[in-house]
Amino acid sequence: MTDRRAPQHLLIEDVVSQALKEDLGDAGDITTAATIPDDRRTQAAIVARAAGVIAGVDLAATAFRRVDPTVATEIVRKDGAHVAAGDKLLSLSGPAAGILTAERVALNFLGHLSGVATATAALVDAVEGTGAKIVCTRKTTPGLRAFEKYAVRCGGGHNHRFGLYDAVMIKDNHVAAVGGVEKAIAAARDAVGHTVKIEVEIDRLDQLDAALAGGADIIMLDNMSTDDMKRAVAKVGGAAVLEASGNVTVETVRAIAETGVDIISSGWITHSAPSLDLGLDFS
Amino acid sequence: MTDRRAPQHLLIEDVVSQALKEDLGDAGDITTAATIPDDRRTQAAIVARAAGVIAGVDLAATAFRRVDPTVATEIVRKDGAHVAAGDKLLSLSGPAAGILTAERVALNFLGHLSGVATATAALVDAVEGTGAKIVCTRKTTPGLRAFEKYAVRCGGGHNHRFGLYDAVMIKDNHVAAVGGVEKAIAAARDAVGHTVKIEVEIDRLDQLDAALAGGADIIMLDNMSTDDMKRAVAKVGGAAVLEASGNVTVETVRAIAETGVDIISSGWITHSAPSLDLGLDFS
Amino acid sequence: MTDRRAPQHLLIEDVVSQALKEDLGDAGDITTAATIPDDRRTQAAIVARAAGVIAGVDLAATAFRRVDPTVATEIVRKDGAHVAAGDKLLSLSGPAAGILTAERVALNFLGHLSGVATATAALVDAVEGTGAKIVCTRKTTPGLRAFEKYAVRCGGGHNHRFGLYDAVMIKDNHVAAVGGVEKAIAAARDAVGHTVKIEVEIDRLDQLDAALAGGADIIMLDNMSTDDMKRAVAKVGGAAVLEASGNVTVETVRAIAETGVDIISSGWITHSAPSLDLGLDFS
Amino acid sequence: MTDRRAPQHLLIEDVVSQALKEDLGDAGDITTAATIPDDRRTQAAIVARAAGVIAGVDLAATAFRRVDPTVATEIVRKDGAHVAAGDKLLSLSGPAAGILTAERVALNFLGHLSGVATATAALVDAVEGTGAKIVCTRKTTPGLRAFEKYAVRCGGGHNHRFGLYDAVMIKDNHVAAVGGVEKAIAAARDAVGHTVKIEVEIDRLDQLDAALAGGADIIMLDNMSTDDMKRAVAKVGGAAVLEASGNVTVETVRAIAETGVDIISSGWITHSAPSLDLGLDFS
Amino acid sequence: MTDRRAPQHLLIEDVVSQALKEDLGDAGDITTAATIPDDRRTQAAIVARAAGVIAGVDLAATAFRRVDPTVATEIVRKDGAHVAAGDKLLSLSGPAAGILTAERVALNFLGHLSGVATATAALVDAVEGTGAKIVCTRKTTPGLRAFEKYAVRCGGGHNHRFGLYDAVMIKDNHVAAVGGVEKAIAAARDAVGHTVKIEVEIDRLDQLDAALAGGADIIMLDNMSTDDMKRAVAKVGGAAVLEASGNVTVETVRAIAETGVDIISSGWITHSAPSLDLGLDFS
Amino acid sequence: MTDRRAPQHLLIEDVVSQALKEDLGDAGDITTAATIPDDRRTQAAIVARAAGVIAGVDLAATAFRRVDPTVATEIVRKDGAHVAAGDKLLSLSGPAAGILTAERVALNFLGHLSGVATATAALVDAVEGTGAKIVCTRKTTPGLRAFEKYAVRCGGGHNHRFGLYDAVMIKDNHVAAVGGVEKAIAAARDAVGHTVKIEVEIDRLDQLDAALAGGADIIMLDNMSTDDMKRAVAKVGGAAVLEASGNVTVETVRAIAETGVDIISSGWITHSAPSLDLGLDFS
Repeated sequence: MTDRRAPQHLLIEDVVSQALKEDLGDAGDITTAATIPDDRRTQAAIVARAAGVIAGVDLAATAFRRVDPTVATEIVRKDGAHVAAGDKLLSLSGPAAGILTAERVALNFLGHLSGVATATAALVDAVEGTGAKIVCTRKTTPGLRAFEKYAVRCGGGHNHRFGLYDAVMIKDNHVAAVGGVEKAIAAARDAVGHTVKIEVEIDRLDQLDAALAGGADIIMLDNMSTDDMKRAVAKVGGAAVLEASGNVTVETVRAIAETGVDIISSGWITHSAPSLDLGLDFS
Repeated sequence: MTDRRAPQHLLIEDVVSQALKEDLGDAGDITTAATIPDDRRTQAAIVARAAGVIAGVDLAATAFRRVDPTVATEIVRKDGAHVAAGDKLLSLSGPAAGILTAERVALNFLGHLSGVATATAALVDAVEGTGAKIVCTRKTTPGLRAFEKYAVRCGGGHNHRFGLYDAVMIKDNHVAAVGGVEKAIAAARDAVGHTVKIEVEIDRLDQLDAALAGGADIIMLDNMSTDDMKRAVAKVGGAAVLEASGNVTVETVRAIAETGVDIISSGWITHSAPSLDLGLDFS
Repeated sequence: MTDRRAPQHLLIEDVVSQALKEDLGDAGDITTAATIPDDRRTQAAIVARAAGVIAGVDLAATAFRRVDPTVATEIVRKDGAHVAAGDKLLSLSGPAAGILTAERVALNFLGHLSGVATATAALVDAVEGTGAKIVCTRKTTPGLRAFEKYAVRCGGGHNHRFGLYDAVMIKDNHVAAVGGVEKAIAAARDAVGHTVKIEVEIDRLDQLDAALAGGADIIMLDNMSTDDMKRAVAKVGGAAVLEASGNVTVETVRAIAETGVDIISSGWITHSAPSLDLGLDFS
Repeated sequence: MTDRRAPQHLLIEDVVSQALKEDLGDAGDITTAATIPDDRRTQAAIVARAAGVIAGVDLAATAFRRVDPTVATEIVRKDGAHVAAGDKLLSLSGPAAGILTAERVALNFLGHLSGVATATAALVDAVEGTGAKIVCTRKTTPGLRAFEKYAVRCGGGHNHRFGLYDAVMIKDNHVAAVGGVEKAIAAARDAVGHTVKIEVEIDRLDQLDAALAGGADIIMLDNMSTDDMKRAVAKVGGAAVLEASGNVTVETVRAIAETGVDIISSGWITHSAPSLDLGLDFS
Repeated sequence: MTDRRAPQHLLIEDVVSQALKEDLGDAGDITTAATIPDDRRTQAAIVARAAGVIAGVDLAATAFRRVDPTVATEIVRKDGAHVAAGDKLLSLSGPAAGILTAERVALNFLGHLSGVATATAALVDAVEGTGAKIVCTRKTTPGLRAFEKYAVRCGGGHNHRFGLYDAVMIKDNHVAAVGGVEKAIAAARDAVGHTVKIEVEIDRLDQLDAALAGGADIIMLDNMSTDDMKRAVAKVGGAAVLEASGNVTVETVRAIAETGVDIISSGWITHSAPSLDLGLDFS
Repeated sequence: MTDRRAPQHLLIEDVVSQALKEDLGDAGDITTAATIPDDRRTQAAIVARAAGVIAGVDLAATAFRRVDPTVATEIVRKDGAHVAAGDKLLSLSGPAAGILTAERVALNFLGHLSGVATATAALVDAVEGTGAKIVCTRKTTPGLRAFEKYAVRCGGGHNHRFGLYDAVMIKDNHVAAVGGVEKAIAAARDAVGHTVKIEVEIDRLDQLDAALAGGADIIMLDNMSTDDMKRAVAKVGGAAVLEASGNVTVETVRAIAETGVDIISSGWITHSAPSLDLGLDFS
């Protein structure tokens, strides 16, 4: 089971506070201040306007409570849930002013992250029954990587490395500088700690031998044909993890998965997933 | 002419530094450190892999220079430029290590913001010749609003309010709390400064009289039919700015614009625009 | 009624924490640590030592609670209240150490902001019965603008723009660069969003026609004689908001208001208002 | 000679950047962006509009350079200089846009700090020839203490402790908790390091013996008559530093100084000094 | 009695949050997330594995509560306590996941600070019965000075100045620049406030006269023989505080103390104290 | 070759600025301000007072340049160099005031990190010729982990995981919660991404089979006898990386290495390494 535990609340509080300051500025919610009495209370709920997979409901709830700690929040559908249009996700109760002021920030987080989860789930569903795992990349929105990586897990995907720091990924420029795939792997193995895996990106089948000889933990097949992928799977025979990358869409992903690769990575699920349509309804 | 001046470099430096720290973590670019000698120099360029409108090339250039101040950057195509696949956008020259380390952060900013600009331009092009302006909303990615608003301007669009703080937007809940559209406008006019405009959102034509009587500066027609929009345009006769909102797509936007509304606002151009495909080529 | 809602508690907590760190440094309150036992409890109150208008009592209460969350605070007189010397503003009960440690920071905020509110009220009182509103400027203390703007509202005044970002203010240098008042207004209208008002500053009556022709929302009469102001009021006839600026004192403000201008702006109420005299009394 | 060295540029850069962000917000200087071409260059100068003592010209210069590093700044009159109306303080040359954008922040710092220096100088001048030194207190503007303390030195004054952390100040509540002035001094001496001075505040002459017996380094005479001050000076005979506090104005300060006290502390010079009138002139 | 009051919780929360973010990164505690169910609860305790003096138990407790506010913490042995191997210091009860995630950060703080306290206590014990006080220096770990200074107090030591800002320390380079010890003291007295003590460092007995004549509050005898220290003590006769510095070890410190100096300063207790061995035991 | 590339300058600048603010406070270097003229220039050098391995010379150089950008710094001995007492490490030239003000912060960083490198080198030297690598742990000083990890590399060691986020480390509590070593490994493999290695800690030989069967990448032998380590090495036969932990000292480390384990981890090299003795000499 994929880990769907949310990022530490320390991270959530920071990113939500920053977003609220961005929306409130120095003058605050001048419309609400002018029209909503302090003692006006209300019930409301965030409701899905389209089907999708939820991610970020904790961030949405945090937004309301950060604006007004007396707003009560009840999570109705947890992150990872598949919802339909009309489903209630988060119930709110408390001062109307606080709920109105936090509304947009809450929806922006929840819509964006649920969009990522929904896009991920589309790929995950498409490869169901194959052994392939869908993973994200470092092609994320600046400042939101921890959250988008989490949304991918909510959608049933897995995470590739989180940054430049937690795994080696040797690409053509690195190879060229050292003078060959095997040498590059050896240089990396020498330099990094024993807890760090080494991945090599190749774009031609004839580089596979060197990658295996070097002892790469993971080999990325970049923009290869599915025929070449099948040949790579046969040749590697489990000696390394095989990752397919490039031209991954809902239409193409099943064929890629059926080549037998272990991992399929997609930038689209984080950098181009449309926001999930959500709204705040007052009752 | 829309203002295409980029956000203050103080903002750019902050957001780029934060993104670099997110990608580099504590251990840094362990692959490059293991394989690229300090004295290896290179020439490279960010190149468009698809057609679109550019936004954020300053952020991309800043990413490289923040990682290594000795990387020379030359902006080939400025923000706002319409580019074709293959066009060179930013030339780079200097230490290969710094260029490789900053590559992903630079592309993430430039791809995301150019995606926003390109989506905006698609709507702007669709309404060409009508008097309507395309504007964005507050449905932006948390932490990046100033930059997405700028990208909208690069795409030929204009900006709606930046946050809850710089214009009044009266919605149904505000109206209900005060007891009517006119009363809500009056309450707002009383409360806010003389430099602040007041917008009222209506979703039925029969609310138009009250909005006009109250003296709203801007009236938003929310999810109305184009027929109702035409009636509103006729009735208002220039006494207020008319803004259309809801169900705005590349397909629908022309018909909306031809109703005679002044402003068409779209959340899609900021919350769901796909990233523009870009790459870093070494020469 | 002016909005007297305080800035978001997110802003308050940040500015109060920063002020406490400034006063406590690394070593903390070394006097209290050496002399006050942990279990010593006390009752105390912030009391006015002079008459004035209160602003910032939330910030003062926050200072005590940030130093020691077990200090109980009760707001006796709310922001906006007119108080006399001897009036109790904020009651405190809890550990003596925490109360003594936070005392100066609490008084510094409350004294400064109440000074701004009191100065504002003096101008507001002087123009009572005329239609003129007293507004502040951007001549504020760096780092405290949101709070000083709020204090102005507590004193019965209104706010001018909060910064360079939320309204256009065209001055002589902008006019000169574009080549005339009308052109400058047109350039601004073209560049900024439809939610942004445009103000033009003029210092001679003969510039009024151009400002009106350009369609300025607000016209600032800078350092004009009251006779010229009257002529401007007559000429404009409600077609734009008229703002008087320059040489505004408690002595001059009534005469300015009686010219019929809508708005009178004063830098003095924020940059030079003397602190209101307050003290902490132990019972 | 008082130290007039400015706070470390690390502090200056932080506070100036924060002030610029406060004024620029997310949208920036929308007026200048709409009207001033990028290549428009200008010469300008900050000029005194009233007589006073200058403090903060480095902060003003930093504001311009932070907005645009290509603006050249030349300090004409250094901090501590006595200037007359019309004197040029800081010359500027470079892009007009950057100069206009930074103008208000630069003036806000320089006006405020010069106001503090000018107020200080008024007290310093009034006690000239006596041995008394004018010092400030902790009654400063939150967030600006380091700078206001510096402005006091520019005005010829000296600094009292910077915060709760760098000297002991025993007041009546501390005395009451420990059970007597001598005991409180002993407790403090025991607790704090050997580099820390101990000051005791007394408001009756009969407390003087205990303060001396306890070995206080400094004795503050709080709100005493000048007759009592003279008696205290005679009795102490140089065994401790004597500081007078309370009811210190330009009118009263000379008489206080002539009692022979060493130090006269004033909250007014930091919390209520009016801003010095300054302007930016373009040439 | 030395003050053992901990640094303000505002400082503690900041440094603990920063340390947790350093350990958790973006991905968090991936081991615990994969293996420990949300509803698993446990009892645990931090236990000493070696004898020593405790400092920082508040920081350890804060680490657990910051990760999970529902973890209950009970401080069994307070800071300053002398403990033996096997002694329980802090009891914990609550979700196992939170306790495991915070464990290392809690132990890192508590082990480091208790190491400082234990090293300090070794010197303090060695000089027992002499009048000498053990003090720390500015040779502290960057970012942790406030906490290491506190740990020194927990170990029975006292604090020297906290930074460059809270006392004058004149060394040979300062003397050389001014042209003599007396002149340097006079320059400092002139420049700094009346609450600031002045210390002079001398490394030859023949500099003692000048230091006394200048009126130094404290004279540091740097790397002198114990014979020279005795001569200095005799000569000064209480007219200034005498501080010995250099070559201070557990073996040498008693002889130094017996010379009659008031203060012995040691860099070793902060920059080189080994961590106290601690562990987390589950019950 | 171990990677000795320093952490990104973005991290260095942050940590150095923070340390300077800690030392300078609000009042700055009051001694230097009082005694050193602005135009006094000097030459100086950081010199080793004891033999050791250098780490952090970039941080030291940055400290001087951050205080005064006109101080010229020349690195004489690079990080990783083995130096003798008297060796010059960093040459400085420029304003004496800046050099004196930054001295202590520069020495604190360089002394601490060189202490870590020197301690590491002692272990590395002791195992020379065996295949064992010396690695550090997460037992680091809060706030300095990236730098201490780097110092370990400078000393010839390697890095274990940087935090809880970049590798799985299954300990007894994780095993107990899941119900066995194999199950715990399986749970982790399921949850984490394909780039993450899994380490299991065992303290009895009879757990080895389960760890191997589960497919652990790394097996930590915690506090085992060297005889048991030899048995583990024989049994594992290269199927997993073997790491020895516990009771690692300069005296014991060779015997541990000779058991054939791949990795020996030591907390002592980061949490208890004494500072390397350094000084600043003026010429």
